[in-house]
Amino acid sequence: MDKILRIDMGAKGGPAYIEEPMGDYKGLAGRALTSAIIAREVPPRCHPLGKENKLVMAPGLLSGSAADMSGRISFGFKSPLTGGIKESNAGGSVSRILARLGYAAIILEGKPGDDSTYKITISKSGLRIEVDNNLKMLGNYELVGKAVENLHRNMACVSIGPVGEMKMSVASIACTDIELDPTRHAGRGGGGAVMGSKGVKIIILDGTGTRSIVAQDKDRFANAAQAFATSLKEHPVTGTNFPRYGTSVMVEIVNEAGAFPTRYFSEGRFEGADRIDAFSLSELELKRGGTPTHGCHVGCIVRCSGVFNDESGEYITKQPEYETLWAHGANCGIDNLDAIAQLDMLDDDYGIDTIEMGNAVAVAMAAGLADFGDADRAIELVEEVGKGTPMGRILGAGTAIAAKILGVENAPVVKGQALPAYDPRVMQGVGVTYATSPMGADHTAGFAFGSAVGPGGKIEQKTLDELVALSKEMQTRITALDATGLCLFTNSPIFSQEDTFKQMLDLINSLYGWKLTREDFMQMGRNTLREEREFNKAAGFNHLDDRLPEFFSKIPLSPHNVTFQISDQTLDDLFKE
Amino acid sequence: MDKILRIDMGAKGGPAYIEEPMGDYKGLAGRALTSAIIAREVPPRCHPLGKENKLVMAPGLLSGSAADMSGRISFGFKSPLTGGIKESNAGGSVSRILARLGYAAIILEGKPGDDSTYKITISKSGLRIEVDNNLKMLGNYELVGKAVENLHRNMACVSIGPVGEMKMSVASIACTDIELDPTRHAGRGGGGAVMGSKGVKIIILDGTGTRSIVAQDKDRFANAAQAFATSLKEHPVTGTNFPRYGTSVMVEIVNEAGAFPTRYFSEGRFEGADRIDAFSLSELELKRGGTPTHGCHVGCIVRCSGVFNDESGEYITKQPEYETLWAHGANCGIDNLDAIAQLDMLDDDYGIDTIEMGNAVAVAMAAGLADFGDADRAIELVEEVGKGTPMGRILGAGTAIAAKILGVENAPVVKGQALPAYDPRVMQGVGVTYATSPMGADHTAGFAFGSAVGPGGKIEQKTLDELVALSKEMQTRITALDATGLCLFTNSPIFSQEDTFKQMLDLINSLYGWKLTREDFMQMGRNTLREEREFNKAAGFNHLDDRLPEFFSKIPLSPHNVTFQISDQTLDDLFKE
Repeated sequence: MDKILRIDMGAKGGPAYIEEPMGDYKGLAGRALTSAIIAREVPPRCHPLGKENKLVMAPGLLSGSAADMSGRISFGFKSPLTGGIKESNAGGSVSRILARLGYAAIILEGKPGDDSTYKITISKSGLRIEVDNNLKMLGNYELVGKAVENLHRNMACVSIGPVGEMKMSVASIACTDIELDPTRHAGRGGGGAVMGSKGVKIIILDGTGTRSIVAQDKDRFANAAQAFATSLKEHPVTGTNFPRYGTSVMVEIVNEAGAFPTRYFSEGRFEGADRIDAFSLSELELKRGGTPTHGCHVGCIVRCSGVFNDESGEYITKQPEYETLWAHGANCGIDNLDAIAQLDMLDDDYGIDTIEMGNAVAVAMAAGLADFGDADRAIELVEEVGKGTPMGRILGAGTAIAAKILGVENAPVVKGQALPAYDPRVMQGVGVTYATSPMGADHTAGFAFGSAVGPGGKIEQKTLDELVALSKEMQTRITALDATGLCLFTNSPIFSQEDTFKQMLDLINSLYGWKLTREDFMQMGRNTLREEREFNKAAGFNHLDDRLPEFFSKIPLSPHNVTFQISDQTLDDLFKE
Repeated sequence: MDKILRIDMGAKGGPAYIEEPMGDYKGLAGRALTSAIIAREVPPRCHPLGKENKLVMAPGLLSGSAADMSGRISFGFKSPLTGGIKESNAGGSVSRILARLGYAAIILEGKPGDDSTYKITISKSGLRIEVDNNLKMLGNYELVGKAVENLHRNMACVSIGPVGEMKMSVASIACTDIELDPTRHAGRGGGGAVMGSKGVKIIILDGTGTRSIVAQDKDRFANAAQAFATSLKEHPVTGTNFPRYGTSVMVEIVNEAGAFPTRYFSEGRFEGADRIDAFSLSELELKRGGTPTHGCHVGCIVRCSGVFNDESGEYITKQPEYETLWAHGANCGIDNLDAIAQLDMLDDDYGIDTIEMGNAVAVAMAAGLADFGDADRAIELVEEVGKGTPMGRILGAGTAIAAKILGVENAPVVKGQALPAYDPRVMQGVGVTYATSPMGADHTAGFAFGSAVGPGGKIEQKTLDELVALSKEMQTRITALDATGLCLFTNSPIFSQEDTFKQMLDLINSLYGWKLTREDFMQMGRNTLREEREFNKAAGFNHLDDRLPEFFSKIPLSPHNVTFQISDQTLDDLFKE
């Protein structure tokens, strides 16, 4: 993992590539690397779908090693959805195989002169860039089968569906999982559209003949890896809650808190929540021969995923995540798991971010184009996106633009990106993260819980000041963590248990022969956040972009009748230096 | 003209109104008044279609008096197209009658709770606000006939077509002309959508029993009025060029200069220009019993308009303006006057800004949805906007969003508003105005010619520095002029002839008993511009919004192969204080 592969899709005479040493990027990985490359190499004012934008994919510091939970792959680009810098990461096998192939990053640059469809294959023996127009407009599932002969477990694909080819802002980048299904998506920000603008339909990584990255200090690494795994297994979040039910365990918790945005953020509790929660989901999955417990990559301890089959036991999709259960479920008034699974499958196949898509469908419902709760119509609308009809293009442009075009006044977006499944009127700390993250509204950018409303109606366990500080701290931590390749869910044990943090540092230090301290680690997070914010500023953002939409401060959310309370000044001060 | 009429469409128990004295707004009129009201009363971050936005209409200082050329009516609002402050003005009879009714401004505020369609009638005997749902979705032509019984020459209507009701950002506000046809549009910025959001379909002004505003110093006013009229008649622009052919006279001039944006700004000269120029247009109009010389309001000397009939001599539309000949013509590769007239008529009837619409159709052509030059398809696309189909809503959202949704990389917009018919790569001074005007790209915001390329290919008669200074000077002048109600075309004689300027000041001073100096007049322009820029800043704009799209600096325009040369720093310095 000591070289960068640059692929210039716009080179004269056709796509060309070059391998480079890390140079100034030495020591960076994952989000720290993707954001550094975008911030330093991409003109902030360029068109996100133009030749000046770049698509960077980078494994984390621990990816490709024997460390558990290290399978996240970061994608960086200037976002067609937000107009700012973006890092969006995914699980699956991509990160591990790319790291084992020796690449710290692949950078797709330039833009082909024609509309040929390219397939790129990378293996130990080299790189092949081919035109394959037979792949045009294929869904991700069919694509993976058709593009790759003799697909095997030491391979991984990065691909886009037709929505990425059509360059819509809801387009995701799909990564294959252990079973070689394209179910792991870097969803947010329209990375799929950027990949589409480069003419690249699929990148096939063949890890044949590669081995786990060997640590500089093998014994210390082996000890740290074992201790780290034990820590995760013993922690309630990574050892018990998520392994049992996956992320769907959040449905009951957030709904009970009254923070589960229902019918386009008009209520905080969904009367159908118990029909789409972890218990209903796992019961249904087990009954049909699926499973509620499944890892997305080799070395996963948390195993938060699952398999969702239809009534006859046929595979439909990976288990819908909490965000998908919400976006296509409660947010659209839909309480039917089969419909949600169908929407999830369509999103994966077309190559669509489920959060942005669910919000856009809810916009259509708010505009009167469908009734809340009408699952058949929701499926039709997503199919329109996949087919690129005019209505599909309106919704495929994302929530903010769909709301503008369809005449819906209140759009739940920050920096053009739709909010995830935690209403900031109850989860005030998450609201601070939504408002101030350089990524736009993003729950993974810095969980700042502690504001849940308990059954007694008590709104805050933490004070607002504490939540504001927590948002900043969590944004910094998560940004640093996004450089490691470690799954987001390791953040609980790592940041709440001193030992686990040390084990993580031990893993990195023994792998590379470094002497990274806790402070160095946190500084890496701060550096990346600063670089991202500076890019956004140069792209045209100012302090007024660090705001939630006004209606969160004005329209109270039932059942607790609360509004977002954090002042503009507080938001402005958060990252002031 | 000493009172303000506030109509609160969202009042409890139904719309209500109140008459107020001018208060702090005393001495302001036209754009100076609309911008002051918007800047001081509308929250800059509010949703343009929400209850906090206001729609202000204000006659100019000289409107309603016996001064010639004083018939412009200003509309002010926060723009759904740009997100900033907007003033958009129109000719016709509205300004004169409103002023004679004694109103310095009408302010539409609030938002009705239901979707009733309102008709407002204002006469000497009072105001009537009625629900009339039979008017829903009527085109402006049918609307005017149906809404008003016994329409007569001392009446005027302000109305929106279906596109305003559907709250699309291309929606214009229509004003009736002398013949009571709804042909005079405040086109730019989506004012029609704001009026639609207030539930108001038509405002009928009945001037029965009113008289011309009487000057404080009658004799001095009469003398000034006569001298002013003589000055205009003797000046080549207002006395000869425009009266003979109307604004279409610009087609040949700008095309010859190589600044006539052709096929979505890809070339600077249109091979079909001579089929849509002033000579072809006037010849066709005369042959069919129309006319190339016609005034839009009582007291018009310039008479730049005309009447366009079909082959059988039936009225089709007012004479298409230069901007319309370009937007629906050269910009879409269409050289057929009948098709352009048809598009113009559709725009007027649906209530659409021809500049924004022509650019949006060109986007569709650039995206491959129609061939450049395909007039039938262009007409179909505009009909889709009028009907509100999904494709119509994409185009009806304006050029910037249509380009984003349809995957067209280069959008000719500033602050979200499409460029008019002068390519800034040749007309560098106009480019400075496009970039820096608080209105977004707007040719009327400050003509800064002098950069025309002559037949020999010489690009600049003025230096770039002179053009930059000229843009600032012209923006200030025109902003001041927009407060008077005088037609834009009086700017040539007024600002190039000391006597004419004095006559204009004489008119104002003798009308009101004021002692306005030249410096006071220019200061009024500066004050308004400052207030507008401050509103935009508070709305979220920064210096990066004062830019032309990058492609004007990067892609040379044929035939002279020139790019926009003005530096970002120069643009930033222009209004620095």
